[in-house]
Amino acid sequence: MRVAVVKNILDANSRIAQENRRLFDTHRLTVINLMSSPGAGKTTLLEQMGKHFGGHLKIGVIEGDIQTTLDAERVAAAGLQAVQIETDGACHLDANMIQNALADLDLAALDLVVVENVGNLVCPAEFNIGEDHKVMMLSVTEGDDKPYKYPLMFKESRVLLISKIDLLPHLRCDIEKIKEAARSINPDLIIFEISSYTGQGLEDWHSWIQEQTAGK
Amino acid sequence: MRVAVVKNILDANSRIAQENRRLFDTHRLTVINLMSSPGAGKTTLLEQMGKHFGGHLKIGVIEGDIQTTLDAERVAAAGLQAVQIETDGACHLDANMIQNALADLDLAALDLVVVENVGNLVCPAEFNIGEDHKVMMLSVTEGDDKPYKYPLMFKESRVLLISKIDLLPHLRCDIEKIKEAARSINPDLIIFEISSYTGQGLEDWHSWIQEQTAGK
Repeated sequence: MRVAVVKNILDANSRIAQENRRLFDTHRLTVINLMSSPGAGKTTLLEQMGKHFGGHLKIGVIEGDIQTTLDAERVAAAGLQAVQIETDGACHLDANMIQNALADLDLAALDLVVVENVGNLVCPAEFNIGEDHKVMMLSVTEGDDKPYKYPLMFKESRVLLISKIDLLPHLRCDIEKIKEAARSINPDLIIFEISSYTGQGLEDWHSWIQEQTAGK
Repeated sequence: MRVAVVKNILDANSRIAQENRRLFDTHRLTVINLMSSPGAGKTTLLEQMGKHFGGHLKIGVIEGDIQTTLDAERVAAAGLQAVQIETDGACHLDANMIQNALADLDLAALDLVVVENVGNLVCPAEFNIGEDHKVMMLSVTEGDDKPYKYPLMFKESRVLLISKIDLLPHLRCDIEKIKEAARSINPDLIIFEISSYTGQGLEDWHSWIQEQTAGK
């Protein structure tokens, strides 16, 4: 019984994700689904991207939070077009929520849409939203054993951003262990080591984003 | 349809949680449901508790992880009786998983059981497991806006452990803001500021644990 219901939910999600995908293609949009634990630094990264790309790349952001519009306010202040989804308890974004939010973005004016998912290292990885790439962030403060303990998100992601590397001197965390574990789960994972606080490592991430949007 | 199914799941969970509660009462056990985001420091705290209480308080631990038995190995090495639940994808522990795991603990020999839930600041808060108290941990590395964004866990918890305070000099995080926001959601919340790394603040937490078990 429960399995059948879950299957129905995922099938319905998949159908709406395809509709989103067609809309993104019509507008030649690149769409990133950005996921992490709470407080890994997703919003700070978006603020940095706003600063870096300025008007050269038109970025829209869909913010997913259980409650509050704090993040949408932050990225709007960084010059990005922003829409907030408040999930009212739901632990992830699904394709239907994204479809509703897209109506509030001026898609024709955008090159890139970043969906900042609810802070949760588990559930968001199960739901496609029609994105080009799932990108995950893991903060070094979370420890070097996380890929083995939360494998699905590492498996589903195209890119792993290892964040807050400026804090490494103060932690018992071996970044090589994170990379080794992540690659044992997903050998094709592209890994960037960054600090959105100091700016370290962001050039490579920005270049990767530029490449994704250039072909469209 | 979906709502009815979710209601059935929560009703069934509640029934099994009551059975767990009766078993805990029979053995005069104190049971803590310990929850946080991934990597906030739950396992390190348990290692410290093992060291502090030694044989004076008999502690059993039920470890919840999506995959691996890494955490059970760590707390067993700290001298605690440990059982690992691998949820195989599930984002939280429920009462039924706990009921099954209890069969592998020698309850008659224990004073305290700590259930270390799956690292997730959202879903675990929805499921009672028959515990005396929900205790949540928030690392200062997660930022000071988290209570407003993830209110349910703050609302459901008896105690908030603010962890990794040794890192505060390196962060843009105002611990007073965390406390103010948490108390605006749950005025009765007991708050301890700790570092399991340096040991700072653990005396008060250990005293609170001692009080909970003393009355049984």
